[in-house]
Amino acid sequence: MDERLQQQLKFILEIDKEKNIFRQTHLSGGGRSENDAEHAWHMAVMAYLLQEYANEKVDILKVVMMCLIHDVVEIDAGDTYAYDDADLKTQKLREDRAKERIYSLLPPDQKSKLIALFDEFEENQTAEAKFAHAMDNLQPLLLNDSNNGGDWRAHKVTADKVYKRQEKTRLGSETLYAVTDNIIQENIRKGNLQETATKENGHEN
Amino acid sequence: MDERLQQQLKFILEIDKEKNIFRQTHLSGGGRSENDAEHAWHMAVMAYLLQEYANEKVDILKVVMMCLIHDVVEIDAGDTYAYDDADLKTQKLREDRAKERIYSLLPPDQKSKLIALFDEFEENQTAEAKFAHAMDNLQPLLLNDSNNGGDWRAHKVTADKVYKRQEKTRLGSETLYAVTDNIIQENIRKGNLQETATKENGHEN
Repeated sequence: MDERLQQQLKFILEIDKEKNIFRQTHLSGGGRSENDAEHAWHMAVMAYLLQEYANEKVDILKVVMMCLIHDVVEIDAGDTYAYDDADLKTQKLREDRAKERIYSLLPPDQKSKLIALFDEFEENQTAEAKFAHAMDNLQPLLLNDSNNGGDWRAHKVTADKVYKRQEKTRLGSETLYAVTDNIIQENIRKGNLQETATKENGHEN
Repeated sequence: MDERLQQQLKFILEIDKEKNIFRQTHLSGGGRSENDAEHAWHMAVMAYLLQEYANEKVDILKVVMMCLIHDVVEIDAGDTYAYDDADLKTQKLREDRAKERIYSLLPPDQKSKLIALFDEFEENQTAEAKFAHAMDNLQPLLLNDSNNGGDWRAHKVTADKVYKRQEKTRLGSETLYAVTDNIIQENIRKGNLQETATKENGHEN
């Protein structure tokens, strides 16, 4: 087997580990925690089905691939809690190291291509990155809403924090931001979300 | 929210259940069983990285989407054991019913589009379907090989059965079939696979 194919297969086996990186979100039906691979799969299917709502026309293959690979760095860097200040400070450094190690398993051209895709997602400037971020936010919101806001209640999350996090959804899709807004308002009415914070508490999705 | 968007979100929440459909394959490192959503994610990333080895040039977005949605029917129909003769007899009927129920949650145009994609995959006549099938076969083979053939040993699978199953890989990619052949031969040498069957036993990947 030639070296190029060996490198590709090594990377493919390495990313199997993403199935062991668990998130704060729970599966619908009040199930177990979701892992990064499942989250990425769900986001990618959503992106394909909801592309008509992107604020700007998107290259859907690019969005789908961003969704599929955006969490590979968490194999080394772990899932960073949205409101863990200590972890957030070191997140960029940890993810940069992970990016270098993991993508270096690939042949150089594919390493460059996937790092460029990941960086574009992180920088959130292009239509594709903005729409992929909208999926990254909407996906756990839908699961959490289906569980009557269980993740919010468990962490005593407040609506202002959820709104802050969901700002990125608006950059990708005004229509899907309206869905988000409806869901947040309904969860405030149900008492699953307090309207304002009394102190820094919990994380949100 | 308009009806179209409501239908799309209902489908998106429904397919969350795919994360609870577990397969016979185990994660690398001798981990737990893999579920359909993780398998689909892994296949899609593989397809993107390995597209250069397809026998014929493929529309990679189509291949990636086939990989992502090909197991949605298993939400109702379950994962069918490759050598469970009773289950295999009813598989088509169970999957057809599941296809109709689940894809009918979508707006009619997207229902038609996703069913066409699924049917194209199942019929295995186009370059895209053949390459997606190669991913469907290679992905569990790589995991099982990384676990020293644990799934084969557990089910006393024989090499002739693995070769039969892997015939489809050859239709999608001669290069990746050569990888498959190497892996099978190495596992025969290691004693993880017996060369021939003495009776119908177990399943393979």
